[in-house]
Amino acid sequence: MSNSPAEIKPIIWQDDQLHLLDQRQLPQQHVYIDYQQAEDVAKAITDMVVRGAPAIGITAAYAVVLAARSAWQQHNTHWQQAMTAPLTLLLNSRPTAVNLHWAIEKMTVLFKQLPDNSSPESALLDYAKTLHEEDIAANKVMGKLGADLIDNNSIVITHCNAGALATGGFGTALGVIRQGFADGKINHVYADETRPWLQGARLTAWELQQDNIPVTLQAEGAAASLMATGKVDWVIVGADRITANGDVANKIGTYMLAILAKYHGVKVMVVAPTSTIDWSLDTGKHIPIEQRPASEVTQFNGQTIAPEGVPAINPAFDISPATLIDAIVTERGVVLSPSINSMRPLHESSFSP
Amino acid sequence: MSNSPAEIKPIIWQDDQLHLLDQRQLPQQHVYIDYQQAEDVAKAITDMVVRGAPAIGITAAYAVVLAARSAWQQHNTHWQQAMTAPLTLLLNSRPTAVNLHWAIEKMTVLFKQLPDNSSPESALLDYAKTLHEEDIAANKVMGKLGADLIDNNSIVITHCNAGALATGGFGTALGVIRQGFADGKINHVYADETRPWLQGARLTAWELQQDNIPVTLQAEGAAASLMATGKVDWVIVGADRITANGDVANKIGTYMLAILAKYHGVKVMVVAPTSTIDWSLDTGKHIPIEQRPASEVTQFNGQTIAPEGVPAINPAFDISPATLIDAIVTERGVVLSPSINSMRPLHESSFSP
Repeated sequence: MSNSPAEIKPIIWQDDQLHLLDQRQLPQQHVYIDYQQAEDVAKAITDMVVRGAPAIGITAAYAVVLAARSAWQQHNTHWQQAMTAPLTLLLNSRPTAVNLHWAIEKMTVLFKQLPDNSSPESALLDYAKTLHEEDIAANKVMGKLGADLIDNNSIVITHCNAGALATGGFGTALGVIRQGFADGKINHVYADETRPWLQGARLTAWELQQDNIPVTLQAEGAAASLMATGKVDWVIVGADRITANGDVANKIGTYMLAILAKYHGVKVMVVAPTSTIDWSLDTGKHIPIEQRPASEVTQFNGQTIAPEGVPAINPAFDISPATLIDAIVTERGVVLSPSINSMRPLHESSFSP
Repeated sequence: MSNSPAEIKPIIWQDDQLHLLDQRQLPQQHVYIDYQQAEDVAKAITDMVVRGAPAIGITAAYAVVLAARSAWQQHNTHWQQAMTAPLTLLLNSRPTAVNLHWAIEKMTVLFKQLPDNSSPESALLDYAKTLHEEDIAANKVMGKLGADLIDNNSIVITHCNAGALATGGFGTALGVIRQGFADGKINHVYADETRPWLQGARLTAWELQQDNIPVTLQAEGAAASLMATGKVDWVIVGADRITANGDVANKIGTYMLAILAKYHGVKVMVVAPTSTIDWSLDTGKHIPIEQRPASEVTQFNGQTIAPEGVPAINPAFDISPATLIDAIVTERGVVLSPSINSMRPLHESSFSP
């Protein structure tokens, strides 16, 4: 499939199947994997075929369609009861990104209203496609809102990949960067390579290169001395879960960047749709942090780096307190200096379709 | 050769040759490369066969012996003039570690006093061996001085490798950690993997494992959230150059750790022999920072990670201002809260042999 700028599509529904771009093989290989079973999609999420909080949510929505199709084929009028097992698998496929719960909840509200004596597939598919389209539309709104916060000719650091690949399309942090570059607000992007999974080196560098946006890679350890030069204006990142007070869970290393930014007077922008906000949690302390296998640190593409038997910690996310964040950009508006009070208006304007 | 705990020897003079443990191949392969020519040793330093500021200094001292042998063989009584070319190559082999200059200066002072009508090899070799032995002795003194600063049952983070491999033997930061572990001061070590060269994953993890000191690896990005748990007491690192005011050049990412430590109330100890102090520079701003090839970031063990053509910055070192450092430990004593004033006594007690 094409990979021209507007065409980075991590998630495609086509020919009654879900197609996921295998992000583990990017940028060297562009391979889509086809899915017909929700259980296989749950494994794909765990294994990071697809990653990025919004992208995981949309993928799960399509997986609910697959689960419903199987349930209807195998259990006929009892299809709704048969949904419990695959949906539990999906909910547990990764723990930190709340968009997964959000999307499955949305799909569940709908399927419980559907009749038990006809195929649910078409109604659920329409809704999954709507969630997908709404995510892309939200990214474009956030792109404009975020870019408006940035002065002309700015230089930014981003971390991990919060781009088209991490969302329905266009991206959250990279959506702001795309819009900011188009508007002359952003001149240059430094991308942290983002160990251990190297999403920055593999995915963000590739996305920005596709769009001819000037990007330079750096190891995480180089971010501090880059900031010390005074050249960096903003850190712009996505989020996997935001709590009611504006604390932000994002890719491991984000908290490091936020502290470094505070020390150097660099501003921090978090870009995420409201589906990323978990209003049930009052602070980030309560967000479950996924611990991934030590082998992701001690090995690289099957090559052993560290000596045999050395343990490693591998938390996939960290929590940046709201006090380190200058702006949270959502499709419903921007929250400056996030706090329990400044965040609340985003919640009050929320409603379910 | 053996690699038992007390036997980690990065630099060996034996059978009239210099043998360097090829640190690029550790921990998987333990291979010594033999050198007879100073020019080849200069290339070995550039290519990081040997690395670590004190180890580079000692290696250069032995290389001066090789240079003098060749000069005597080829130029007889004009051997001293023939030293200029190989010594210039050695001085330029890496720019940041001042120990290289220090060792070559020491050797130069000696060889200029030697007669021009007899072989200089034996006198120079004796002095290179003395510098080597003094470095190990200094490390053992620093080990005790540093360990004395640490409370019982502490947990520490170290960065890069400032161990036996980076020195004549025993190590600077890892010397303190070895002594601290022996004394019950240190219970556990977290080693940053240290991108892009992975000295932490490959060298520090291996050294500590050899000594049965509990070590856990982490990506640099995970250091901040580890500190946020409140478990970490000290950051302990080496140095490549220290200026008269106590600013410290060390492996890229050290400045990041120092800022994170300040934010979390974790203490920072820098362990380095006085040969690492450059009294000619008043602040760290004047230290030349080596920029290494982008390919060290965009590739991994020859495997390409990033998309073709994406640039990368790859500064090998950064500067931590003295204000972020709690203690500089040298073989002549400890400087708490380093500054131009508190550093001065180290200088005044200095003398050349």
